[in-house]
Amino acid sequence: MSGRLFVIGLGPAGDAMMTPEAKHALAQASELLGYAPYLARIPENPGQNRHPSDNRVERGRAEQALALAAAGRDVALVSGGDAGVFGMAATVFEAIEAGDRALRGLDVTVIPGITAMLAASARLGAPLGHDFCAISLSDNLKPWALVEKRLRAAAEADFVIALYNPLSRARPWQLGAAFAILGATLPPTTPVAFARAIGRADETVALFSLASADPGLADMATLVLIGARASRLITRPEGRPWFYTPRSAS
Amino acid sequence: MSGRLFVIGLGPAGDAMMTPEAKHALAQASELLGYAPYLARIPENPGQNRHPSDNRVERGRAEQALALAAAGRDVALVSGGDAGVFGMAATVFEAIEAGDRALRGLDVTVIPGITAMLAASARLGAPLGHDFCAISLSDNLKPWALVEKRLRAAAEADFVIALYNPLSRARPWQLGAAFAILGATLPPTTPVAFARAIGRADETVALFSLASADPGLADMATLVLIGARASRLITRPEGRPWFYTPRSAS
Repeated sequence: MSGRLFVIGLGPAGDAMMTPEAKHALAQASELLGYAPYLARIPENPGQNRHPSDNRVERGRAEQALALAAAGRDVALVSGGDAGVFGMAATVFEAIEAGDRALRGLDVTVIPGITAMLAASARLGAPLGHDFCAISLSDNLKPWALVEKRLRAAAEADFVIALYNPLSRARPWQLGAAFAILGATLPPTTPVAFARAIGRADETVALFSLASADPGLADMATLVLIGARASRLITRPEGRPWFYTPRSAS
Repeated sequence: MSGRLFVIGLGPAGDAMMTPEAKHALAQASELLGYAPYLARIPENPGQNRHPSDNRVERGRAEQALALAAAGRDVALVSGGDAGVFGMAATVFEAIEAGDRALRGLDVTVIPGITAMLAASARLGAPLGHDFCAISLSDNLKPWALVEKRLRAAAEADFVIALYNPLSRARPWQLGAAFAILGATLPPTTPVAFARAIGRADETVALFSLASADPGLADMATLVLIGARASRLITRPEGRPWFYTPRSAS
């Protein structure tokens, strides 16, 4: 099989956080696939065909990308953030594993990107300053009981916690339930940040305590960061406090 | 205070994974500080002063950067990977919190970078395809008992696990001890990858099972990835198998 598939993380926003490697891979592709708002970030190129798709059709999008590559095309399949972190990369390998064995001969290259957790952390200070975990609150593909188990384990072992996909119209209660679970272990004063659309024109950042965080203020574009026991705020003469986690822990 | 401090993640290697935002911030600085091998990656600019330092002097390096910024300079303090993930960002905020209150008026900007875990994951396939955690095995700043607790919690809650700082000459036994702890919970067939110096000329990647992984093959430049229960390998007609974790879990 002669085609190539690049699975590319565009970063959280615009050009400033997109790597040269990602840009170079995009330039080599004749076919661009991805969720429509991510594709819209890429400048038009008359030599490239665009195949935008809806948010809920990851598997079909991966299969379409593989079919185009199998037909000899150079294909770029894009994700926001990093394709390997709750992005398209795992979906591609699921489709390869379930598909025709010939797909295993394809040239597949995954290009890393700045994932939302890193962009949010940078904007806030250094909340990920020590051991941390990333959990998707979506229970579309795993039972909610497993999410609960992971939240409890993370709080008990004192990880900083990054929550992806905190809630959506179809999943309105999960973030509140997560805060309730964490509140059973973590102090009510634990710092919590909502970082939305970092790097975009509509970027917003808000700081709360675990007791005061309002799930209703989050949406699918929000990354929620919950501190560990040592995490704290540094107040400043002007502007939002810095949220950071010291390197040392006891 | 009129100086500025940029705390910059350079990514894991060279230019290809460094963001335009990081490059732009570097260009604005008159003073460059960092561990010498990271500074060596940045092209010389006769208008900039370089202050390379040893690996073991993070706090002193952060204080020097803050002092230069407080004196009105535009300062870039660089980390490999992402400065917020086991890099210099937390050290800077520790130094601010412990230092003169005037430091809180400084203009500090953290610029995210591709952390080793993301670069390694991309090279391997999609091992971080579901919930995951990142743990530093260094017990210089935390008790080993806490590392053990986090490893047990991560294995029991079925996180994919990224291990940073797996071992060094001064800490030769920690990675073997970590594998033994994980082996008490995870199946011996759990995929394990050692990804070293990703993106550099001396890049190496090796795949093992948890039972066969040899800690002696890792060093400080190695990122160790340990799968969750659903993680698996996809064999290919040529080349290394892909290591991935499906999005769904039970």
